[in-house]
Amino acid sequence: MAKEVTQRSDDYSKWYNDLVVKAGLAETSAVRGCMVIKPHGYAIWEKIQAALDKMFKDTGHQNAYFPLFIPKSFLSKEAEHVEGFAKECAVVTHHRLMNDPNGKGVVVDPEAKLEEELIVRPTSETIIWNTYKGWIHSYRDLPLLINQWANVVRWEMRTRLFLRTAEFLWQEGHTAHATEQEAVEETERMINIYAEFAEKFLAIPVIVGKKTASERFAGAIDTYCIEALMQDGKALQAGTSHFLGQNFAKAFDVQFTNKDGVLDYVWATSWGVSTRLMGALIMAHSDDNGLVLPPRLAPLQVVIVPIYKGVEELATISTVAGTIQQELQAKGITVKYDDSDNLRSGFKFAEYELKGVPVRLAIGPRDFANGTVEVARRDTLQKQVLPQAGIAEYVQNLLVEMQDNIYSKALKFREENTFKVDTYDEFKVQIEKGGFVLAHWDGTPQTEEKIKNETKATIRCIPLNASPAAGKCMVTGKPSAQRVMFARSY
Amino acid sequence: MAKEVTQRSDDYSKWYNDLVVKAGLAETSAVRGCMVIKPHGYAIWEKIQAALDKMFKDTGHQNAYFPLFIPKSFLSKEAEHVEGFAKECAVVTHHRLMNDPNGKGVVVDPEAKLEEELIVRPTSETIIWNTYKGWIHSYRDLPLLINQWANVVRWEMRTRLFLRTAEFLWQEGHTAHATEQEAVEETERMINIYAEFAEKFLAIPVIVGKKTASERFAGAIDTYCIEALMQDGKALQAGTSHFLGQNFAKAFDVQFTNKDGVLDYVWATSWGVSTRLMGALIMAHSDDNGLVLPPRLAPLQVVIVPIYKGVEELATISTVAGTIQQELQAKGITVKYDDSDNLRSGFKFAEYELKGVPVRLAIGPRDFANGTVEVARRDTLQKQVLPQAGIAEYVQNLLVEMQDNIYSKALKFREENTFKVDTYDEFKVQIEKGGFVLAHWDGTPQTEEKIKNETKATIRCIPLNASPAAGKCMVTGKPSAQRVMFARSY
Repeated sequence: MAKEVTQRSDDYSKWYNDLVVKAGLAETSAVRGCMVIKPHGYAIWEKIQAALDKMFKDTGHQNAYFPLFIPKSFLSKEAEHVEGFAKECAVVTHHRLMNDPNGKGVVVDPEAKLEEELIVRPTSETIIWNTYKGWIHSYRDLPLLINQWANVVRWEMRTRLFLRTAEFLWQEGHTAHATEQEAVEETERMINIYAEFAEKFLAIPVIVGKKTASERFAGAIDTYCIEALMQDGKALQAGTSHFLGQNFAKAFDVQFTNKDGVLDYVWATSWGVSTRLMGALIMAHSDDNGLVLPPRLAPLQVVIVPIYKGVEELATISTVAGTIQQELQAKGITVKYDDSDNLRSGFKFAEYELKGVPVRLAIGPRDFANGTVEVARRDTLQKQVLPQAGIAEYVQNLLVEMQDNIYSKALKFREENTFKVDTYDEFKVQIEKGGFVLAHWDGTPQTEEKIKNETKATIRCIPLNASPAAGKCMVTGKPSAQRVMFARSY
Repeated sequence: MAKEVTQRSDDYSKWYNDLVVKAGLAETSAVRGCMVIKPHGYAIWEKIQAALDKMFKDTGHQNAYFPLFIPKSFLSKEAEHVEGFAKECAVVTHHRLMNDPNGKGVVVDPEAKLEEELIVRPTSETIIWNTYKGWIHSYRDLPLLINQWANVVRWEMRTRLFLRTAEFLWQEGHTAHATEQEAVEETERMINIYAEFAEKFLAIPVIVGKKTASERFAGAIDTYCIEALMQDGKALQAGTSHFLGQNFAKAFDVQFTNKDGVLDYVWATSWGVSTRLMGALIMAHSDDNGLVLPPRLAPLQVVIVPIYKGVEELATISTVAGTIQQELQAKGITVKYDDSDNLRSGFKFAEYELKGVPVRLAIGPRDFANGTVEVARRDTLQKQVLPQAGIAEYVQNLLVEMQDNIYSKALKFREENTFKVDTYDEFKVQIEKGGFVLAHWDGTPQTEEKIKNETKATIRCIPLNASPAAGKCMVTGKPSAQRVMFARSY
């Protein structure tokens, strides 16, 4: 191995961190809780952004950009919102530094205190709805379908690369509608887009559902989410979409004249996914050799490595490699020919496995003589020797097959780790082992809280599209309309 | 007109602001000095980003992301840098809010004071070079060619939309090299990429040159810039590229083992352009009717407007419009068919002119009968009636011609407003009138300062690629190797 990665069975958490750092995805920075996203990690994020951005635009959304800072008073305007968001955040209190009178670097200039403190946005509902007040007057201005790609800051105490960082990158959609029904439809449309993206691009199957009242976004009437199962049996919330009712419109006095000429408050949604998706992507598919990337999100899809002794052998192999490279590029596949002479091929193999390059082609002198090439696929680690003729088409099909296979493997894992239980005793045993646990719950926050305190499991969601089979709460025995999904989570 | 725009001759500054706001590009926000970039403005910025990002990647650069915050002590590490940058900035001093004990909203929790204040990045050299220390050990790690798309904050006292805002969006490239020569070559490569981008995409001719010592970036050995001339005769700096020598490597102790096995400090460059380019784009080409956008940066390139009475006429016109729309889309042109029934066509015409849509096609009943279409081009405001057959190809060529024409017009304007003067008296008269003024200067900061104080003109740059003709300083009569370029500026 090029760089030692902790094995999953030894320490799953350390394995994750090793992968993130050693595959060159991200690292901690000198600023507590803030990460540096390294080129390989950022290239994957760019692929995620491009795919989502297209899905947003295809459904009529436009991008815009709102200020990084939020006046402190804005946070208090929506009562529940401030409770959920305004507390752990970065507060700007001054706007100037000055030379230290004692000659040691710079100090904050006490004269430059802001009249009102500014909060680095933890989310942008408040500043955006304050802006929408100026944009929305009539039903003709609606719907307003806007998305923003931005950085946000939440002062998390315990951070983990990608999964929970003080600063993270995300997109936040904020839409305004004339009717409640349209806003609910939008909320559902966007959670379904997230689910589609997760399955088609991240190759991660997700459960779409609604959060319980206690897990809702601060200020929302309803929060929809997608939940994914990681290899250690814990759940990861990968995206949320909120129906905000008229809460923010009332807090910021955003009214419009409807078709009947009557003034009414506007209906709102917001929805977001973040660099947390990187964590999901890594944890869902990778193995003890390193990253496993679905081909659609791999910045580099194919690497060609020559096996040779001396410059003459390299020259002959390079002509073949060059032809294959061109054929692959003509099919829109990203390829690198790595003929660097400072690393042994075994080292290169391990390095590309670590970084998750889906397909590796190796060409040695015997391949040159026989007109063959060795094809190694990252997902199964299988190798086979194939004729050079037609190899580009083979690889093109293989990439599609691998995307499907990675998804199928994750789906199979989830199916094998989803359990129905009917008693609280069974529940406690199963939750220890991990996985999604479907059980009946009486719908009260008290029971939810009790289960959380006793088992560290939360209700990840009330699944949509589940066949509603009534039953009795596993804790209280009270009636339940359908099973809800429990898990321990990230 | 749909919305009244101030005429340039009445008040150029107000005209600019009117355009930005009324064409839906940006507006001021509730946070002092921070703007909201509206969808139409952001769509143009996305086009700018896409073009530049491709140029960066084609020259071997990778994107990454570094923290929003910089520990205060970092800013003091490079002595000149702190003088130029550390002063007017947003300072984070606390990480928590709490409910006001008096019950009025939220207040800063005094218990949550940071040990060391964090500065919202005004530029990222310090945090990035602190990170590079961990990435660079050997000449094999070099060159390191990294770019970041990010928001930055500089606490400007007087702000103008796009041109000078407290928060703005930009890209900042930060590269590390083994030799001085390589770093200088990179600095020049990037300023030339900016110049090429300005001319080919923004359709703005620029002068490439070096800044004088007093106008250099804080911490740079040399600053290269591109300077553009606006319609009011003022210069606008549109991009800079800095050769940083070993200053930041020494400040953050970034050393590497060179090919001879000897430890040496790394050589650095940094370069950036920002949403200020939006200001340049608007001011360089637009007219009293609104925006004029070069077709390559126009989010919407063609709009088709039906002229009709009643639904039957609309239906027949729509079939023709639909065919033309498809033909244009097949050529990769972005087209909208605006058959909205709530606005008169005259209002639509004015609105699309205001927003700078390059080509407008109008189809009325007579056009339907005659198989014609009216083509209006935004740059010259000329209209002509042409056969529907072959219209897509005509429009495709027209867009190319318009891109060239907009550039040529701006080049002609600059040539007509560039003056050589030899005496300080002539200089003072010319500077009052506006334009680029080429004059001899003795190379001293004292003379530069005197000219600035007396005329409000600065040396925009010492042009590269100018035929070096020696002369005498217009102020002191001392010898000068070549003319330098003066102007009043944004």
